[in-house]
Amino acid sequence: MPDRLRKWNGWGYEGEGIPAERIARWLKAVEPWLRISPDDYQPPVSLESLRIPPPRIPIEIPGFKGAILATSYERALHAAGRSFGDLVRLRAGQDLHFPDAVAYPEGEDDLLRLLEVAERRSIALIPYGGGTSVVGGVEPETPPGFNGVISVDLTHMNRIRWIDPIGHRIRVQTGIRGPDLEEALRAEGLAFRHYPQSFQMSTLGGWIAARAAGHFSTAWGRIEHRVESLRMVTPCGILETREVPASAAGPDLRAWMIGSEGALGFLTEAVVRAVRPPIAKRAGGFRFPTFSAGLEAMRGILQAGLAPAVLRLLDEYEVAVSAALAGRLLEPGALLHLSLEIEDPEEAHRVEAEWRSALRWIERAGGVPAPEAVETWKQTYFEQPYWRDVMIDFGLLLDTIETAVPWSRVEATVRTVRERLLQAIDRWSPVGGVMCRVTHGYPDGCALYFTFFARPPREALREAWRDLQRTALQAFLECGGTITHHHGTGRDLQSFLAAEHGPLALDLLRNVKRVLDPPGIMNPGVLVADMQ
Amino acid sequence: MPDRLRKWNGWGYEGEGIPAERIARWLKAVEPWLRISPDDYQPPVSLESLRIPPPRIPIEIPGFKGAILATSYERALHAAGRSFGDLVRLRAGQDLHFPDAVAYPEGEDDLLRLLEVAERRSIALIPYGGGTSVVGGVEPETPPGFNGVISVDLTHMNRIRWIDPIGHRIRVQTGIRGPDLEEALRAEGLAFRHYPQSFQMSTLGGWIAARAAGHFSTAWGRIEHRVESLRMVTPCGILETREVPASAAGPDLRAWMIGSEGALGFLTEAVVRAVRPPIAKRAGGFRFPTFSAGLEAMRGILQAGLAPAVLRLLDEYEVAVSAALAGRLLEPGALLHLSLEIEDPEEAHRVEAEWRSALRWIERAGGVPAPEAVETWKQTYFEQPYWRDVMIDFGLLLDTIETAVPWSRVEATVRTVRERLLQAIDRWSPVGGVMCRVTHGYPDGCALYFTFFARPPREALREAWRDLQRTALQAFLECGGTITHHHGTGRDLQSFLAAEHGPLALDLLRNVKRVLDPPGIMNPGVLVADMQ
Repeated sequence: MPDRLRKWNGWGYEGEGIPAERIARWLKAVEPWLRISPDDYQPPVSLESLRIPPPRIPIEIPGFKGAILATSYERALHAAGRSFGDLVRLRAGQDLHFPDAVAYPEGEDDLLRLLEVAERRSIALIPYGGGTSVVGGVEPETPPGFNGVISVDLTHMNRIRWIDPIGHRIRVQTGIRGPDLEEALRAEGLAFRHYPQSFQMSTLGGWIAARAAGHFSTAWGRIEHRVESLRMVTPCGILETREVPASAAGPDLRAWMIGSEGALGFLTEAVVRAVRPPIAKRAGGFRFPTFSAGLEAMRGILQAGLAPAVLRLLDEYEVAVSAALAGRLLEPGALLHLSLEIEDPEEAHRVEAEWRSALRWIERAGGVPAPEAVETWKQTYFEQPYWRDVMIDFGLLLDTIETAVPWSRVEATVRTVRERLLQAIDRWSPVGGVMCRVTHGYPDGCALYFTFFARPPREALREAWRDLQRTALQAFLECGGTITHHHGTGRDLQSFLAAEHGPLALDLLRNVKRVLDPPGIMNPGVLVADMQ
Repeated sequence: MPDRLRKWNGWGYEGEGIPAERIARWLKAVEPWLRISPDDYQPPVSLESLRIPPPRIPIEIPGFKGAILATSYERALHAAGRSFGDLVRLRAGQDLHFPDAVAYPEGEDDLLRLLEVAERRSIALIPYGGGTSVVGGVEPETPPGFNGVISVDLTHMNRIRWIDPIGHRIRVQTGIRGPDLEEALRAEGLAFRHYPQSFQMSTLGGWIAARAAGHFSTAWGRIEHRVESLRMVTPCGILETREVPASAAGPDLRAWMIGSEGALGFLTEAVVRAVRPPIAKRAGGFRFPTFSAGLEAMRGILQAGLAPAVLRLLDEYEVAVSAALAGRLLEPGALLHLSLEIEDPEEAHRVEAEWRSALRWIERAGGVPAPEAVETWKQTYFEQPYWRDVMIDFGLLLDTIETAVPWSRVEATVRTVRERLLQAIDRWSPVGGVMCRVTHGYPDGCALYFTFFARPPREALREAWRDLQRTALQAFLECGGTITHHHGTGRDLQSFLAAEHGPLALDLLRNVKRVLDPPGIMNPGVLVADMQ
């Protein structure tokens, strides 16, 4: 069990949250245009008031060394991920699927015992890391035919196997949470620097299962670029790749495990690539007359071979809304945040040279210094999930959704997605908006991160959210984009996989699942809708 | 059919080769220690003298738009790849497997027709690009049960679909050869810069099928890093990924096609990532007292985040042998070749800053300038395959084999592989040697490229070669390395795949093949030994 108590119905640990006075200030700022007032507040329901059915299965597994729990708290905590829709359900105490039990395995032996029992008794197993999926990846909702569901919380499998200071590598059990991985590496003069917004709660295994990206991925790469070797315990045995930096021995087997979203087996251990921790940075903000001009600068920087730790561009709408919320007046335009890190004092000259190159592309595209664009990212970035709980309690719909497209399709995609989302918002809400930022860049394209908000009737909060989400996904596909750049697909996006990949790919996925998980007990409903 | 006639039994095109006077000079240089004299020369057999059995199958396929040929030349040209063992067989005209016909499809329609006929009549199809496999990847040798074999030469499917100058991307049919791809991109101010040693003959599809790396891959990445999207025609339909820079929509489907070695389907089109062509470079050579010191410099450079176009290290043995062959006296030690490219005159300052950083790591490890280490790579690199033909004709065994290991295992691996190979050479030859170079580097490890040579009895040339190859592969696996860093596995390394990946992974591969190629007609014997 964790040292600190996680909130069963919100972000973070008990005792954490946005202070009341800041919520009051926020209310004042948004009241005029979102028409939200203190009277709109509805508190979340209590744990005691939840109607949790009795477990359908006994919770004893012979020889299991870890804990198997069926308390209301554990069952509620593992009842959903942390998408907007999940939180609406959790805070209202409605439409929830509770696991019959929560297992905390201590090691692979425990997993093998669980698999044996689950297969014999037709029990679904839901691999659970930090539980922060925003796509229904850890929901204990299964297709018919199962006698029970166990949420398998892997956070006790978080041991460091070794750290290789020569090769900047670490072998670790994948149940380790972000901060613990970072701390273990820092003690050896290394770092991992993979910072998804869920960093404080989520686990290495979760990042790998969902093919995550993080705050600094433009520099250090997505999680798949950080994985040297992987080990997965499946119902049919163990899949493990060699600890080598590169290979051409047939197809890359890591890629069958990365993005497998718990549907093929439990990721148990990984060798990942560490980096040197930064000692300083060179950062700046820049304003562009248009989003389009900002995109040109980003593209120039990335195609020149620069890989800044941070390179993110806020469109005019996001700039305006952020300013309004902060009660500041900002000049119109798009804002670019650029940050280069210095890991070695003797390499500072190189960072200066890179800075000079980046400035050249920025100036060429019409960018001018705008110090206000330098985000104090750590606080706001990690605070946002806490704010979402607040907003839900006031009946506000606010969520994000992301895609990736080649540079040549960025502007058409942003235009189309915005139009479609605004039309959809109109169906539900008198107020609302759509903002876009470019969060991750590549030489051939970038990730677009849309934020949308609306104020639908309270009872329609979840329905409106699903409608907006589906609207955006449909628009992504029409524009040639992907349905997700770094969140995985879970149960919520599963029905879009056929449109993303085509029928043959889905047939392949289904067959891979049949080989590794013939009884179909691993995270059923994820990746593969049914095994037939 | 190609404009120029490819040699059916050697490297390159008819009319190409090493001039006689250079061969004479080489003979003089190697005579004292390899005991080879002009008398050892045995010319290759003529095409006319080959005993090619009549085709077992008629060569008409209704509606096929391309050419289907069964001339001696075409059947001999497609009878083998270009490994040392292949060339020994080709030049001796012995132990060859001739395809019954060679098909040159003009497009996917032709492939579908071929697949239909092949499935109906149990004919094996061997996808053939440049035909330069060094692992038996294009050998028309099949397990029992087939009524015939067609080598499917894809080089007529080489059309450019589009070039995207904004996103530095190109969509192209994968039968395009290296020089043609490079030329098409140069015309648009772009480049691809993927230079395997086979560049002049090999195709984009071949690079992708074999998970190739090239001369500049330390900077630009292995072929898998260059592929944005892929399309594959399989016996069960078409698999195609979206044209997006990144995605988290389940496992990466490209990775099921990259490295598939023709055993799952025909790679027909790809969107690949181009780069800017270099206009200048900053290059230098450096001598280190030991190989170990050179490795330290390489590792420092790569872990500092530098990705030089060229960063290769020759061990003491390779330095000594190269010097002896060139008739030069070189100081003992290991030699490092470093090259940074300048693509944009306005970015020259950045290259200077990187150069300064690299020098710091070189000096720290005890490296001193050694201009002789700067290889005139283009000539020697592309000339080496021509020399191999010459050496075989003089009865010399000379080949290379490569692996990749983490930095912490490099020295033990080099020591073990060298020892084992020298022991094996002793079984066959009174003279011989083993050299090693590091050709590709990563922050977590590197690729080791071993060259071995010996002078076994002429009739045992191929047997000795296989023994040395197997000895090295076994040593790679024992040292924790991979059986291949950039050549694929073909028929020659297939039996080592189980040791590389484990039985469950092989079961998975077999099942993926069953889904995409249920009749088992695609390159049978490659990746999957049998379908049962």
